[in-house]
Amino acid sequence: MLLVNPRNPLNIGAAARAMSNFGFLRLRVVNPFEAGFREARSAVGASSVLTSAEEFASLDEAIADCTLVVGTTAVGDRELHHRVKALPEAAKIIRKQMASGNVALLFGSERVGLSNEELSHCHWLLRVPTRIEHRSMNLGQAVAVCVYELARDAGKSAPLGRVTRKALPAAQLKSATAGDVERITKTLIEALHLAGYLTPRSGKTPEEKIRRLLRRHNLTANDADLWLSMLGQILYRLKNKS
Amino acid sequence: MLLVNPRNPLNIGAAARAMSNFGFLRLRVVNPFEAGFREARSAVGASSVLTSAEEFASLDEAIADCTLVVGTTAVGDRELHHRVKALPEAAKIIRKQMASGNVALLFGSERVGLSNEELSHCHWLLRVPTRIEHRSMNLGQAVAVCVYELARDAGKSAPLGRVTRKALPAAQLKSATAGDVERITKTLIEALHLAGYLTPRSGKTPEEKIRRLLRRHNLTANDADLWLSMLGQILYRLKNKS
Repeated sequence: MLLVNPRNPLNIGAAARAMSNFGFLRLRVVNPFEAGFREARSAVGASSVLTSAEEFASLDEAIADCTLVVGTTAVGDRELHHRVKALPEAAKIIRKQMASGNVALLFGSERVGLSNEELSHCHWLLRVPTRIEHRSMNLGQAVAVCVYELARDAGKSAPLGRVTRKALPAAQLKSATAGDVERITKTLIEALHLAGYLTPRSGKTPEEKIRRLLRRHNLTANDADLWLSMLGQILYRLKNKS
Repeated sequence: MLLVNPRNPLNIGAAARAMSNFGFLRLRVVNPFEAGFREARSAVGASSVLTSAEEFASLDEAIADCTLVVGTTAVGDRELHHRVKALPEAAKIIRKQMASGNVALLFGSERVGLSNEELSHCHWLLRVPTRIEHRSMNLGQAVAVCVYELARDAGKSAPLGRVTRKALPAAQLKSATAGDVERITKTLIEALHLAGYLTPRSGKTPEEKIRRLLRRHNLTANDADLWLSMLGQILYRLKNKS
């Protein structure tokens, strides 16, 4: 579970408690509002989850080793550029992916959720199916419902938290990490600047569009290598041709 | 939902919020520790649930009009005299019963849960399937997980909580034509030749690899447009920079 810009330490503690209740022990926090969150009293029985929580200054770094990045959303006012899956369906896919790589499930800050820039790092979005009339959930409760659903049918497939890899996926099928995909994104964006497709005045919107495009492709590790070497060479030539 | 001897008004408010999120609007409270619970700030968006909450001095009175009474438990030290059903199974039975009568779902006080006396009012018990090593849940989170599960499959029978997903515009989901994908492929290959990534001596193998790569991405028509315009501009710059 990955909390992005959480404001209230009590919510971080509550998230940790629910995670521990359902066997999810790895918490990452990006840029928490209060530094002292590790002492949150709300983490009853889950202080070890808080103590071992990893803290990051940026979302980029926090998801670099993940092969699937899923954002949570209340789907409201914002026009969404992603596919949205309801929690039960999403949980199935996440559980499957967890067998072969790290999965990051992102929760935004209490007030505003995930920003468009943050969402652009996600492969797709998960929606907890709340009522249309009252969508906004408490952060700790949203985490609780998600980890409950993730653990819900775990008994049917594999023991939660220690997934035995029966057949290692062939190298060609291994998913690219978020770090690799972000490197491709950065290389492409730089090339597009040099090519005049993007300009300093383009702003963030086209970059977010490109970021989402590359995430939609569900790159394998091999695909990522290929793209990176191709775009790297194109970038090199654009730089050294003037 | 029926909270028995709740101590912390913030937990009552949090319970109300989760109930409202999932369409359960009738809250009953037995003997709350603090009389001012109706003003709990944690009931974000659910103040009407708190305002209309019914307060009772005893459990007896609170469940008098119910046809099914279910207690929640962490199943711990206590020797239980009831049948215990895991939440997913319990939710099915509760949903069915709700069609013909009032159902009370009891949550005990934060510290000690439901007493044996209180449990004795229950037809059977519901257990949220937490880890054996960490069973005790936060009250607001336990309520959240229960109402989520109760609403989870409601879409199959009743309209509760069900949101018709806003369909993405058709253009966004329409697949790219093979012609579009091939144009992208050709543009990329030409750019890679100009960049020195491919040479006349490379042969067909790397080109086939790139062709397969782009087909694996399952591009939509919009994705294809974006790629084509980006690569077109890069190609133009590579051609006109020497």
